[in-house]
Amino acid sequence: MKKMLVFQTDFTYKEGAVAAMYGVVKNVDLDIEIITATHEIPQYDTWSASYRLYQYIDFWPKGTIFVSVVDPGVGTSRRACVAKTKNGYYIVTPDNGSLTHVDRYFGIESVREIDETINRLHREDNGAVSIFHGRDLFGYCAARLASGIINYEQVGREYPVSEIVRHEIAEPVIKEDRIEGMFEINDPNFGNLWTNITLRDFLKAGFRMGDKVHTVIYKRDEVVFDQFIPYYDSFGKAEDHSVMIYNNEINKMGLAEVVGNLCEDYRLSYGSEYKVVFAHE
Amino acid sequence: MKKMLVFQTDFTYKEGAVAAMYGVVKNVDLDIEIITATHEIPQYDTWSASYRLYQYIDFWPKGTIFVSVVDPGVGTSRRACVAKTKNGYYIVTPDNGSLTHVDRYFGIESVREIDETINRLHREDNGAVSIFHGRDLFGYCAARLASGIINYEQVGREYPVSEIVRHEIAEPVIKEDRIEGMFEINDPNFGNLWTNITLRDFLKAGFRMGDKVHTVIYKRDEVVFDQFIPYYDSFGKAEDHSVMIYNNEINKMGLAEVVGNLCEDYRLSYGSEYKVVFAHE
Amino acid sequence: MKKMLVFQTDFTYKEGAVAAMYGVVKNVDLDIEIITATHEIPQYDTWSASYRLYQYIDFWPKGTIFVSVVDPGVGTSRRACVAKTKNGYYIVTPDNGSLTHVDRYFGIESVREIDETINRLHREDNGAVSIFHGRDLFGYCAARLASGIINYEQVGREYPVSEIVRHEIAEPVIKEDRIEGMFEINDPNFGNLWTNITLRDFLKAGFRMGDKVHTVIYKRDEVVFDQFIPYYDSFGKAEDHSVMIYNNEINKMGLAEVVGNLCEDYRLSYGSEYKVVFAHE
Repeated sequence: MKKMLVFQTDFTYKEGAVAAMYGVVKNVDLDIEIITATHEIPQYDTWSASYRLYQYIDFWPKGTIFVSVVDPGVGTSRRACVAKTKNGYYIVTPDNGSLTHVDRYFGIESVREIDETINRLHREDNGAVSIFHGRDLFGYCAARLASGIINYEQVGREYPVSEIVRHEIAEPVIKEDRIEGMFEINDPNFGNLWTNITLRDFLKAGFRMGDKVHTVIYKRDEVVFDQFIPYYDSFGKAEDHSVMIYNNEINKMGLAEVVGNLCEDYRLSYGSEYKVVFAHE
Repeated sequence: MKKMLVFQTDFTYKEGAVAAMYGVVKNVDLDIEIITATHEIPQYDTWSASYRLYQYIDFWPKGTIFVSVVDPGVGTSRRACVAKTKNGYYIVTPDNGSLTHVDRYFGIESVREIDETINRLHREDNGAVSIFHGRDLFGYCAARLASGIINYEQVGREYPVSEIVRHEIAEPVIKEDRIEGMFEINDPNFGNLWTNITLRDFLKAGFRMGDKVHTVIYKRDEVVFDQFIPYYDSFGKAEDHSVMIYNNEINKMGLAEVVGNLCEDYRLSYGSEYKVVFAHE
Repeated sequence: MKKMLVFQTDFTYKEGAVAAMYGVVKNVDLDIEIITATHEIPQYDTWSASYRLYQYIDFWPKGTIFVSVVDPGVGTSRRACVAKTKNGYYIVTPDNGSLTHVDRYFGIESVREIDETINRLHREDNGAVSIFHGRDLFGYCAARLASGIINYEQVGREYPVSEIVRHEIAEPVIKEDRIEGMFEINDPNFGNLWTNITLRDFLKAGFRMGDKVHTVIYKRDEVVFDQFIPYYDSFGKAEDHSVMIYNNEINKMGLAEVVGNLCEDYRLSYGSEYKVVFAHE
């Protein structure tokens, strides 16, 4: 396997954190190729970190090692871990919810807590050490793994997959004349919203391409959107600024305002306070 | 030739799109080196996509393959293509105007429509497929080309270069005592404006280094700027916050507010509604 | 040594500058690996450029070549140089203050002015040449150095290290019952402030982990913050939105508002107008 690491964090490029982390990787092994997935995960947002991993992990070559560092609880007792997924990848991350979606949709085969006595970079000064875990713990351990200095078993002690910290994920509900779900995430660049309703379930509920679907969005039980909107396979088929349903890039149903921004123009967002209902009527 | 792809899109790094696209590339061939030109082309702005390619393409080694995905018409009948340029490069892109400047200034030798039956990644689910062309079509096809799995002829059917979609480009006009042009683009970071007037034409019109040039800017025929400003070869020669003319990095005449932001401070922008006149008087 | 360059600039990715610069590097030698440290140094801010280099340089493998281009004085008489540091790195940069912190904390062994007659890319048009030094001078010269086309001695004429342009750096002052320092930089993503007080000096002044430290911040001699705040080794030990002292990732004392933004919420920033005092009382 080629030596390669794929990074996602909430560090941004506004300061030197990414460069320090990448430096440590190259200092472990100059031959490791570093790929930036993103450093713009919303700050402290372990839900987004989890969702983004799930969104793209399956497109990478088997064996790829991902490093995900969004870590509001750095320095607390949250575990630092490496997870091995059932679809053949490794994820180096704080165990703080970032494994939620990959666990749910692809499965985690096993997980190990990083042994900081051997897989952490120590730079002591008068007995105190730095607290930048992205650089000294996750980046460093991942580099050792990518380089082959350690294998997966040498990461540290295995612990039960059942102990992995998970966010709650609501499942969509199919009723006789409707399907009810939530918005799991947005597409922040274009303002689209992605539901947790799979194409498979949407079709099972009887909706077909071209249908005008009665779509109601609730925010804390209050109706904030109520329209009949089409389900199309292409943005080009709808009028500019109209709202439509589409099958998104990972085969879940999305809502978009064509050449517009649904989230901004309709003041919508994602999360558990929103419910979306697609109905026949 | 080294296996390498250079990417520009309007995806930003705010979500997982770039990572998914890069994953597909690596899944085709782990040895392809991925270079990020930018993922911050203004959204849907095929004019900017075209200009940026033109701005930097000629500095790369001959044979380099560029992937440019700014695609407001995804899913419509716009073609997906690979163009071969007369100066020795390949561009994988929706044919929606993004080839305008490279065609005008360097020339397109030939162009082929991507055959989606062989050069598209299909991930079917109940007969529906994802619609992320950046990942499944442009990224995937470019990776196959970079890897040598297909050659240029195997991209798909050639079509006439005359059919390439082009934006209109206005040419500057040299008169006896003046030269008239437009602002083609901005330098968004520093607020500079770049005209379509080449250094060659500027000199032909009789202007020389150090001249105080009578500069008038019109917005829809209304004068919005009227000053005598110097033509210098260096920002350091002008006073802070004064406006000056300079020869930009691709030998066209630019306007800058020194250690300031011309676009913001004078409420100027680029595009066909602006006219700029440099006059002797 | 592997052929590799690490870049930091204030160019952003909003236009084609980074892509043009990287193209020149690859045109010199396709085998040079390009790493992006950041292109988001605050505009014209040579102080930040200097600090960021200092923050991450020491984590990279010895021999690494860095290119830092933040250049408000481009075209003036400021020198273009390559510095060799005492801790084993090379920095290709305008000599405009960007070497300040590396010089102070690690030392510059020697410095050479880039000979533009041989180590600059010339693209002439009617006797005028482009003025994009990042691409044609710094990027080009760095690529020649990384590639081995030239060695360090062939960069150009050596000049005295004493002539390097430096910003002023204030030193912290330890008094009987207090230590006085300044904020050197911020952590813009999280809103933390980093002082110039090292952990070593903080401990020498008698402060210990868990202490509630009387912390007073002055802005131009006016008190703008006055609280007893704890010194902890982890953000997780303090309450959300409380302010605490910590040992930052390069062993200097930092101030943070836990899961908050100290700079925004308390309207603080860094620079010479701020003074911070940690006192026993």
